[in-house]
Amino acid sequence: MNETTKYAVFGSGSWATAIVKMLCENLDQVGWYMRSVYTKEHILKEQHNPSYLSSVEFHTEQLKLSNDINEIADWADVLIFVIPSAFIHAELQKLTVDITDKVVVSAVKGILPESGLLVGEHFHDHYNIPFEHIGVIAGPCHAEEVALERLSYLTISCADPVKAQAIANVLASDYIKTKISDDIIGTEYAVMLKNIYAIAAGIAHGLGYGDNFQSVLMSNAIREMKRFIKKMHKMKRNINNSAYLGDLLVTGYSVFSRNRMFGNMIGKGYTVKSAQMEMNMVAEGYYAAKSAYLLNEKNMKKTRLPIIKAVYEILYENKNPKKVFNKLTEKLD
Amino acid sequence: MNETTKYAVFGSGSWATAIVKMLCENLDQVGWYMRSVYTKEHILKEQHNPSYLSSVEFHTEQLKLSNDINEIADWADVLIFVIPSAFIHAELQKLTVDITDKVVVSAVKGILPESGLLVGEHFHDHYNIPFEHIGVIAGPCHAEEVALERLSYLTISCADPVKAQAIANVLASDYIKTKISDDIIGTEYAVMLKNIYAIAAGIAHGLGYGDNFQSVLMSNAIREMKRFIKKMHKMKRNINNSAYLGDLLVTGYSVFSRNRMFGNMIGKGYTVKSAQMEMNMVAEGYYAAKSAYLLNEKNMKKTRLPIIKAVYEILYENKNPKKVFNKLTEKLD
Repeated sequence: MNETTKYAVFGSGSWATAIVKMLCENLDQVGWYMRSVYTKEHILKEQHNPSYLSSVEFHTEQLKLSNDINEIADWADVLIFVIPSAFIHAELQKLTVDITDKVVVSAVKGILPESGLLVGEHFHDHYNIPFEHIGVIAGPCHAEEVALERLSYLTISCADPVKAQAIANVLASDYIKTKISDDIIGTEYAVMLKNIYAIAAGIAHGLGYGDNFQSVLMSNAIREMKRFIKKMHKMKRNINNSAYLGDLLVTGYSVFSRNRMFGNMIGKGYTVKSAQMEMNMVAEGYYAAKSAYLLNEKNMKKTRLPIIKAVYEILYENKNPKKVFNKLTEKLD
Repeated sequence: MNETTKYAVFGSGSWATAIVKMLCENLDQVGWYMRSVYTKEHILKEQHNPSYLSSVEFHTEQLKLSNDINEIADWADVLIFVIPSAFIHAELQKLTVDITDKVVVSAVKGILPESGLLVGEHFHDHYNIPFEHIGVIAGPCHAEEVALERLSYLTISCADPVKAQAIANVLASDYIKTKISDDIIGTEYAVMLKNIYAIAAGIAHGLGYGDNFQSVLMSNAIREMKRFIKKMHKMKRNINNSAYLGDLLVTGYSVFSRNRMFGNMIGKGYTVKSAQMEMNMVAEGYYAAKSAYLLNEKNMKKTRLPIIKAVYEILYENKNPKKVFNKLTEKLD
């Protein structure tokens, strides 16, 4: 990877738009695939994404925009996927060009609901991409604050530190600080698990628990996350680093988090279905709760996951949130 | 300690009032010393504290109220001190009765500015009270939520687990869950340090940093706290337990925290003096920043404390908050 390495972003949501903005600070040209013809035309005409971070103005001559996933995948050397996990499987069905030699980076905040696989694992298993060619971008980072150019920190994980650093360098700017890590599996799980804890925080809020309980919940959540990730991939890591604890906090304390909002509606008495309909979308943590719970159940040596279990029981077993949380409070400390 | 053990609270602020409320759930009589004659008379007449948590109604026949610190210290077996650290030295000057055989519990959220000692250390050094007779009550717990009877968790630390459990039992109720710990020094330092980090969070907010940075700041703060406490008293502890991380979060994320508010004013451009005058009080973290910084400087093996150093430089060396935080952001990750 060098100065001529070509980067492309796949997806047009707020996080995808934020990553394109970061890349545009450093690169002459950035590839950008999006499904919607309307969004592409709007960006070309109005210089901004019509639906997300619309305050961010792009120089369109810097963008190589396309509605053809194969055109962009073929053109770029580094493919950054930022598509909601619920749609990524369908999008990848369109991919016909060979990407075996590409570097694939996941900025997807979840797990593939169809397979229960992390996005990195999915590319490894289905596209024969070696782990040294797979990267993960982790926060803590609200896309909205990137739009405002407020100082944010990213962690870029890759088994190959040279690749991690190259990706970190093209994302870094005055308002983005980056660090690298070799824990791709751990950071991908952290990104996924935090959404479950954000749902838990929302349920607690909806049920009327206060700030004292929220802090106990987050303190238990980071310990639970540590146990879970250790079971999945044992290595030396400091769970209090920004990519794990920081990301948990920015999501768990955010009143704008869709996962927290979804949990809040459940806590207030909405059914899962009506909350999803009301939000007109499915929160990532909804799938993550099932995957994480089942992964642990299948594991020979299960670990204690009281918060994930509580969220799973509420979302998938139709149990009463008030009763489930009542029981949960006995298991926290 | 048994069913006839007598408990008393010293102080009449919001946290003192909350602890009296907790004790009243379990005990027939609770001693309560306060300096102000007016407050005492008001409680007797109106059944509530006029200045703090005034929604909490007391059954005055349960209270043994006095403005005489020696009367209450003599009467009680367990003395719970909940006086702001800036005033505790002056209050203790009045103490003439022998308290050598008493159990002394600190719920003071700070350090004695006169000596730089933790409250537990102060009683040990100046009143010959053995560490087995000294306890610490730690949150995470906003007093205001105790008033509302919202579920909260406390950690009671004492070198003697039987005493810790006895104190935990008289504080526990439907809305208060308690656990015990043998880390009195660590929890006292955590209670003190979190106020410095709350000031840092306030300064950051005042300077215009956003939620992404706040989460990085908290993630670095808990790692810094771990290093500091380990240096002061090495033992096996999980820094992510509620008494450490939970307490940091409930304060660092609270918009009501006086320490955070104080920091916010500094970040917005107030001088230290004008911020203190405006608030009509001195935030605990103001003294804590000096004590923590100097304790570390005196230590043979200093540890890296970039956040505490930044707060110290702003509060005591009159350095420009914007420049200091600019430098600090380079040291966080």
